[in-house]
Amino acid sequence: MIRQKILTLPPMERGVHLITPRVEREISGIHRGLAHLFLRHTSASLAINENYDPQVRRDIESFLRSLIPDCWEGFGHTLEGCDDMPAHMKNILIGPSLTIPVAEGRLALGTWQGIYLLEHREHGGGREILLTLVGE
Amino acid sequence: MIRQKILTLPPMERGVHLITPRVEREISGIHRGLAHLFLRHTSASLAINENYDPQVRRDIESFLRSLIPDCWEGFGHTLEGCDDMPAHMKNILIGPSLTIPVAEGRLALGTWQGIYLLEHREHGGGREILLTLVGE
Amino acid sequence: MIRQKILTLPPMERGVHLITPRVEREISGIHRGLAHLFLRHTSASLAINENYDPQVRRDIESFLRSLIPDCWEGFGHTLEGCDDMPAHMKNILIGPSLTIPVAEGRLALGTWQGIYLLEHREHGGGREILLTLVGE
Repeated sequence: MIRQKILTLPPMERGVHLITPRVEREISGIHRGLAHLFLRHTSASLAINENYDPQVRRDIESFLRSLIPDCWEGFGHTLEGCDDMPAHMKNILIGPSLTIPVAEGRLALGTWQGIYLLEHREHGGGREILLTLVGE
Repeated sequence: MIRQKILTLPPMERGVHLITPRVEREISGIHRGLAHLFLRHTSASLAINENYDPQVRRDIESFLRSLIPDCWEGFGHTLEGCDDMPAHMKNILIGPSLTIPVAEGRLALGTWQGIYLLEHREHGGGREILLTLVGE
Repeated sequence: MIRQKILTLPPMERGVHLITPRVEREISGIHRGLAHLFLRHTSASLAINENYDPQVRRDIESFLRSLIPDCWEGFGHTLEGCDDMPAHMKNILIGPSLTIPVAEGRLALGTWQGIYLLEHREHGGGREILLTLVGE
């Protein structure tokens, strides 16, 4: 069984956002298998990590800003702003997709795992995720 | 065909551990398809790399310690110890899951590829991987 | 339905190469599902990012060279050359595989998304990708 649907997310501010409930409510018609999330953008990312302390999300954003500074002097692609090429670079390292197991009709995340949307742009616009369910 | 099983790993010391044989022996009942490994934790990671020279694994650990130092002064989430937030950050960059093709009933890894469990914590406890096989 | 095929790529120079057309022409016999690309090597990577401005690809290569310098003094695995261990490290961070949704018989990439082969070695040789299609 294969199912696909599009999740539309509103514009979010730069930083790390927990979207687990938004994804969970789209998991239906599947008992066991895989849920694949694919973000159709090159300057935001998807990741899984700590779902509890919001400070973790702020720390991730701080570290990413330190690792790949806005306006890094080595970047030549600067027409779209100082945060654009760093956004692409973060997307290369973190990635635009996740594959999560589904068991007993639910995402089989660990106790502390949540799904993050990392918005890397200052003014990123809405984002679209294509969800594919494969299973039975 | 979908199959799922849980692999329980004993506590391992901080560093990079080759777990290919542990995973390979769980690949059964499938001829062709995908094996998906999902680590249900936020401070350890899964990756694929060089299976031969153990120095490569030590070098990866050294580089990660240099890239994301313990007790980095920008981190605010420090209640669980100086190695906790760096562990989350490594997990964001490396990831908690792998998808590996299965061909002729075996993981279709390249000659030099092995599966790593990267334990990012000093005292990480046991780890659990949910394996999902999709195929025929 | 499961299909597998091997894509053989010629040697490419160190850097970031767009291989979308090479992958797209292998997508056949599937209407809806997932395409999984698995690079069977430990010193090159696969990623998705900006398909338009070639400067983005050059900037990614520049940043990766800055992040993980050739001949970094912390690396002990140096027998295969100064670019070998950095290549493994980049592969750990970026990864050797991609999962991309297929819809209406085509890769469902976003408007600006292209598929990259990142060759991390100075003299990398040919590379092999195992493509697995899962769907209907």
